Amino acid sequence: MSAYEDLAARFRRIGLFSDIGGILHWDTDVMLQPGSAETRGEQSAELDLLQHALTTDAAIGDLLAAAEQDNSLDGWQRANVGEMRRAYRHATAVPADLVAALSRAVTACEMQWRSARPADDFRGLLPKLQQVLDLTREMGAAKAAALDCPLYDALLDQYEPGASAAEIDRIFGELASFLPALIGRVLEHQAAQPAPLPFTGPFPIEAQRRLGLKLMAALGFEFERGRLDISAHPFSGGATDDVRITTRYEEADFSRALMGVLHETGHALYELGRPAEWRHQPVGEARGMALHESQSLLIEMQACRSRSFAEFAAPLVREAFGVSGPAYEPDNLYRAGIRVSRGLIRVDADEVTYPAHVVLRYRLERAMLAGDLALADLPGAWRALMLELVGIAPPDDRTGCLQDIHWPGGAWGYFPTYSLGAMMAAQLFQAALAAQPDIPAGIAKGDFSGLVAWLRREVHSKASRYSTADVLCQATGRPLETAAFRAHLEQRYLS
Amino acid sequence: MSAYEDLAARFRRIGLFSDIGGILHWDTDVMLQPGSAETRGEQSAELDLLQHALTTDAAIGDLLAAAEQDNSLDGWQRANVGEMRRAYRHATAVPADLVAALSRAVTACEMQWRSARPADDFRGLLPKLQQVLDLTREMGAAKAAALDCPLYDALLDQYEPGASAAEIDRIFGELASFLPALIGRVLEHQAAQPAPLPFTGPFPIEAQRRLGLKLMAALGFEFERGRLDISAHPFSGGATDDVRITTRYEEADFSRALMGVLHETGHALYELGRPAEWRHQPVGEARGMALHESQSLLIEMQACRSRSFAEFAAPLVREAFGVSGPAYEPDNLYRAGIRVSRGLIRVDADEVTYPAHVVLRYRLERAMLAGDLALADLPGAWRALMLELVGIAPPDDRTGCLQDIHWPGGAWGYFPTYSLGAMMAAQLFQAALAAQPDIPAGIAKGDFSGLVAWLRREVHSKASRYSTADVLCQATGRPLETAAFRAHLEQRYLS
Repeated sequence: MSAYEDLAARFRRIGLFSDIGGILHWDTDVMLQPGSAETRGEQSAELDLLQHALTTDAAIGDLLAAAEQDNSLDGWQRANVGEMRRAYRHATAVPADLVAALSRAVTACEMQWRSARPADDFRGLLPKLQQVLDLTREMGAAKAAALDCPLYDALLDQYEPGASAAEIDRIFGELASFLPALIGRVLEHQAAQPAPLPFTGPFPIEAQRRLGLKLMAALGFEFERGRLDISAHPFSGGATDDVRITTRYEEADFSRALMGVLHETGHALYELGRPAEWRHQPVGEARGMALHESQSLLIEMQACRSRSFAEFAAPLVREAFGVSGPAYEPDNLYRAGIRVSRGLIRVDADEVTYPAHVVLRYRLERAMLAGDLALADLPGAWRALMLELVGIAPPDDRTGCLQDIHWPGGAWGYFPTYSLGAMMAAQLFQAALAAQPDIPAGIAKGDFSGLVAWLRREVHSKASRYSTADVLCQATGRPLETAAFRAHLEQRYLS
Repeated sequence: MSAYEDLAARFRRIGLFSDIGGILHWDTDVMLQPGSAETRGEQSAELDLLQHALTTDAAIGDLLAAAEQDNSLDGWQRANVGEMRRAYRHATAVPADLVAALSRAVTACEMQWRSARPADDFRGLLPKLQQVLDLTREMGAAKAAALDCPLYDALLDQYEPGASAAEIDRIFGELASFLPALIGRVLEHQAAQPAPLPFTGPFPIEAQRRLGLKLMAALGFEFERGRLDISAHPFSGGATDDVRITTRYEEADFSRALMGVLHETGHALYELGRPAEWRHQPVGEARGMALHESQSLLIEMQACRSRSFAEFAAPLVREAFGVSGPAYEPDNLYRAGIRVSRGLIRVDADEVTYPAHVVLRYRLERAMLAGDLALADLPGAWRALMLELVGIAPPDDRTGCLQDIHWPGGAWGYFPTYSLGAMMAAQLFQAALAAQPDIPAGIAKGDFSGLVAWLRREVHSKASRYSTADVLCQATGRPLETAAFRAHLEQRYLS
């Protein structure tokens, strides 16, 4: 057995345990009863430790050194070794004790957050959140030393390999140069037009579910290898060949659950579209969370909040709920889907104001990680920055700094990927349209095959063979810019 | 850290991975889409191998030897060491290669069985089933050598520690001495009475589900630590503090789903009732599958197919389905619940003929494992023995030797535990009634607390502290006999 084959067998095993972790995570969010949370936390911690132990196995360093000298490997295999090296670097940087301590701290903090949020009790959460922050800084410092980069970049690299705070500062700086003024112009433009007609429910949940399944099918979701379920916070998860998305339903409004389904279907297509021959190998994994988010936003925001999609969806909506009238004509559906407002909650934000929510979190988490902002001062800093960036301030922490699970959950360095993904989505969709101008006409008829084939070829099938920057350059001919995103917003919201 | 503490930490870890396996197994049967089955098989095999590797770790032998000499341990701790020794003996008997080969063979055979059964294709299943049988015999021989017992006893010991073919032959011999004649008398007695009135559906599934939940609550199922879901084959599974039962619904008949829920709730009460301080330790596990089945059958057959239960359930049934009339009076519900017939399918069998189905499987699997019956001859042998033991023969293999998943699933040596459990259930219930004569009056009012408290004290709380034989003796004052079962059948079916 060559060093490469040995590594491939080891990482296949790690990949299978990672699959199992994906199913446990789905189960925690979709199925778990509250009284089972403690034992689930212990199970997850043990699984995390196992993967860490397998990845830091003493033999792997030598095997990697040997495989990196192996000239018989092809491009995919070499990229696979590169991804193994990356995983090894991240894992060996952190001692097992710290992995265990962080896992326990995160479980305890997430559990507390679930009650602290509705109770608006930031002070009650503070001790556990401080523990997560302290341990995250300790882990970040260890990874920064191993990767020879700043602490924030080391955390970011866990979610979006190769990204850096310097690049994010450039992109977010470009955004800051036009977005505040653009938001103002969009709101003025919107106010000058008649408001869309309201939808009058109730819209039975079972009918919403059936309509969601129909749209998923139109997009090419493979139900043989996936599921649609319900969770408090919609997500896409599961395992290899077993892709599970969730949404949440309200009887009063069908559009939120539906757009959530379309968003998660974008993620799912990326999961289902990667090459089968690289399943359970590092190079077969998704490239990063920014590119992942680009796939969900491309489907939801670029493709499905369009006039073409409203043409396709309107008769399906009328049929699903037995409704009719001008509110359910394409023009109204389209205009209702692109309402912009200054809101408090990130997950409810429209695509124009969303980046402001992300910039806020990015600035605050960098300051906290750098020690420039004490956790106790977070609520005040949040309110001040919301006022500056979005234009309104929350009356409480429930709708302020307690709204997201990311920080209690240990996902520091994750937030920027949402907006990097939005920029990539716009740039990729622009390129897809240039290559295949008939995509909108297809969408209007419910035919997404041209778009999905383009995504499969340009993004999904590449898995982790190339860097995110290379994927983007190969597909669009340009590095990541804000130009396409800006053009998209101006075209959709100001014309 | 003492040897005992070291072992406890190691077995806690194994227990957590076993928990994870329980959740995966539940997910496979309740949630998994067909296109995800292959990757799930790989995940499960890897998890099996991991548990085997952890249990056979080189250090454990020495730690066990040291802990067995440790006089400071109390009774529970000593029993815990005994259970660790048992697990170690079973695991070290079998090389990892064989564990992996059997896991793969079982996954492949179960997948094939799922299509072979409806297609009535025993010949198509034969090669894969032969592979499972061959590997099971190899494993059984290895365990027999390690445990110094016959091959069949070694397999049986995996499911019901301490049981032996000799004891089963004694019990089944007693059964054979009265059961065939008793079946005949019961059927005569039944024919001489008017048939129960039929239930006329449809009975909406959601109403069935709500009624099932109500009955589970009455029995004391803790929904904070468990769930009720749907699967093709009802079962009780899940993990520590996370007990998941399933049933299946038919609109035409509410009673099957409901009795299934009650049966699985009996299993669940045993899972939820074991001592919290021994969770994730070997001594905290269920004693064995025979005692486990005694708990489900005690609830379903002894407690809930009684006149008292019919008194309690009748108004709930009428309310749940908005039905009325003599068919839904207690007497008719009771008589409908105890119909006896010579049927082909084990899982549909009544409690009088059920043991005959088990004796058939026990005889056939012993013959196949001993090499006295070739797999190719199984369908013919099945038909002949069905005629002899139950009095009818299946027209095909679908309703014959293909009906159960146990053999394709590698669970050879499991079947006897069903009927051992039925004998235990009768003996335990008899003792419970002697100790607390007001149990039936409680059941008639929906109050199961007296019965459940007795079970908790006499069975659940003992976990694996004592042998099954000791638990039975402590609770009933007698070793396992068929007398209570026989008396129960005669009282219920001939009076």
